[in-house]
Amino acid sequence: MKPTRGYAVHAADAKFEPFDFERRELGARDILIEIMYCGICHSDIHQARNEWQNSIYPMVPGHEIVGRVKETGSEVSKFREGDIAGVGCFVDSCRTCRNCTDGHEQFCRKHVAVTYNGTEMDEKTPTFGGYSSQIVVDEDYALKITAKDKLANIAPLLCAGITTYSPLKRFNVGAGQKVGIVGLGGLGHMGVKIAASMGADVTVFSTSPSKEQDARKLGAHNFVITKNPENMAALAGTYDFILDTVSAPHDLNIYLSLLGVNGAMVLVGAPEKPSEIHAFSLIGNNRTLSGSMIGGIPETQEMLDYCAEHNITSDVEIIPIQKIEEAYERTIKSDVRYRFVIDMQSLDKA
Amino acid sequence: MKPTRGYAVHAADAKFEPFDFERRELGARDILIEIMYCGICHSDIHQARNEWQNSIYPMVPGHEIVGRVKETGSEVSKFREGDIAGVGCFVDSCRTCRNCTDGHEQFCRKHVAVTYNGTEMDEKTPTFGGYSSQIVVDEDYALKITAKDKLANIAPLLCAGITTYSPLKRFNVGAGQKVGIVGLGGLGHMGVKIAASMGADVTVFSTSPSKEQDARKLGAHNFVITKNPENMAALAGTYDFILDTVSAPHDLNIYLSLLGVNGAMVLVGAPEKPSEIHAFSLIGNNRTLSGSMIGGIPETQEMLDYCAEHNITSDVEIIPIQKIEEAYERTIKSDVRYRFVIDMQSLDKA
Repeated sequence: MKPTRGYAVHAADAKFEPFDFERRELGARDILIEIMYCGICHSDIHQARNEWQNSIYPMVPGHEIVGRVKETGSEVSKFREGDIAGVGCFVDSCRTCRNCTDGHEQFCRKHVAVTYNGTEMDEKTPTFGGYSSQIVVDEDYALKITAKDKLANIAPLLCAGITTYSPLKRFNVGAGQKVGIVGLGGLGHMGVKIAASMGADVTVFSTSPSKEQDARKLGAHNFVITKNPENMAALAGTYDFILDTVSAPHDLNIYLSLLGVNGAMVLVGAPEKPSEIHAFSLIGNNRTLSGSMIGGIPETQEMLDYCAEHNITSDVEIIPIQKIEEAYERTIKSDVRYRFVIDMQSLDKA
Repeated sequence: MKPTRGYAVHAADAKFEPFDFERRELGARDILIEIMYCGICHSDIHQARNEWQNSIYPMVPGHEIVGRVKETGSEVSKFREGDIAGVGCFVDSCRTCRNCTDGHEQFCRKHVAVTYNGTEMDEKTPTFGGYSSQIVVDEDYALKITAKDKLANIAPLLCAGITTYSPLKRFNVGAGQKVGIVGLGGLGHMGVKIAASMGADVTVFSTSPSKEQDARKLGAHNFVITKNPENMAALAGTYDFILDTVSAPHDLNIYLSLLGVNGAMVLVGAPEKPSEIHAFSLIGNNRTLSGSMIGGIPETQEMLDYCAEHNITSDVEIIPIQKIEEAYERTIKSDVRYRFVIDMQSLDKA
């Protein structure tokens, strides 16, 4: 077994502390990645604190992982020692169901081995995430990263990047289209960058006037303060696509009203309570409300390659793992532009 | 002016009675259609009784109109005297906005002159519908009907037909796909026929076991009683597309759970109250909930041509206009298979 250092929480109300555990010995198709950077996703906080009532402790969160390949199993063909590799939100699936064979492994009909707070395909062995020194993963569930620098900025692509890229791609966002991004946080700021790179005319919808300058710097062409109903009414029926990244409860009908004929809005944030949708919000203009959850391995690789080609990375604030509690508090307050990323070298100081 | 006979209601709680009114003299691009048949749409009842709080009286309902062209204006090119023509849910729009020029006239951004209970483009002159002897309409808003017989069965295509065809077409329903139709009424029975004609494997979801035989006769391959939760759970994630034709309140999340990856459900019925949608119902499997409202003129013509080619018409019960009140009551009780159509020759007996 591979002795591994990490940071874990042991209960919903506990603080993080250093945690030693073991990764499995490499199988023929496994690679061992020395983790360099791991992003902090808001879902890490929900799960560390058992806010989704499904937490398994001890928990080592982290599913925005970038590192260097240190060992490869005998049959590994996609990676060589020294390569940069990424791991996202899941590390295995059944590989045989229709969703897996279609490249939508995140919706595997049998079992998705999520990167942490889950179990391996035996549905028993707990998985531990990226707040740790290394990870062993089947090469089919690792992503190739061609960049050599800005690796901390690439880490959040593994979740925030694919979460926003996938729906923009699925709905064929491109030049000549008006695209709205609701919320300018970890997800929203990636949505702005990617939508703008696709050629769309991008509007950020936000409650915070203070974010306008940033929004424009990230690539947005317009900025709308949502608190003013007149601002919203004036835009009725004028958008082709809206990406809603907000998890807090909010009225979706207002945003749906902004869509033109056959326009679509996609939820990537997940409010805890159901949203009330008026049928006429959808029937008028043949509007669509859709949801999106990360992406499969082929599309995640496509997104990484796309971002490399278009020079897109995440705006990050790099922290040592010893500052994890402070980073969580600041993430909850949206006091981060726009993603915290843990520098795993800091584990050595633990 | 053209003296015209019809049946009208004069108040929300009034009964229908004979009503004489005038149609306009033909403009250069107008045609006069002698109405042979007019279908009874559930929305006729909602509006006759002011259930949508927007009724204009006196009201002559009816927007599933088929008849014979009797006169043509000097510049008319699409129709000749003696042709069979149809009129659907609207008789004019601005013709210049993006939605009109894109062929989505039903979503005209300026004004849609709906066939009844609305106004012409002057936004003053009231429109009167198909429960009448004749109608004058701009040829651009009339549809060509090539069939010579079964014209009563064709009338409901002008609303029920296009309402179901448009979303099936928009979501590329076809061979190899599993399609669900929720509700087997005027809309649902058209949905079954059209989806089956497109090659899909069609399931009718219904609360009424008594409808199974009919569903299969109409072309459905499967029939599911929705009252049994086990029936529904067993089908989770297996449908590509669901057309929901039910206007009564019902839990949409249950149907969304039946959709596989990138599956879509479209509402064509409109419950009065908003529906509660769980974000995870959409985010799981990247599901889509959409709405659809009739169709533009080009797509309505496409639908009529498609139905002619595939020998698809509506199952109807033909009534004289004197039985309109009885037909309304039976429509409300879903006691019709599957659409009442008024034989306008019965006006002569009034």
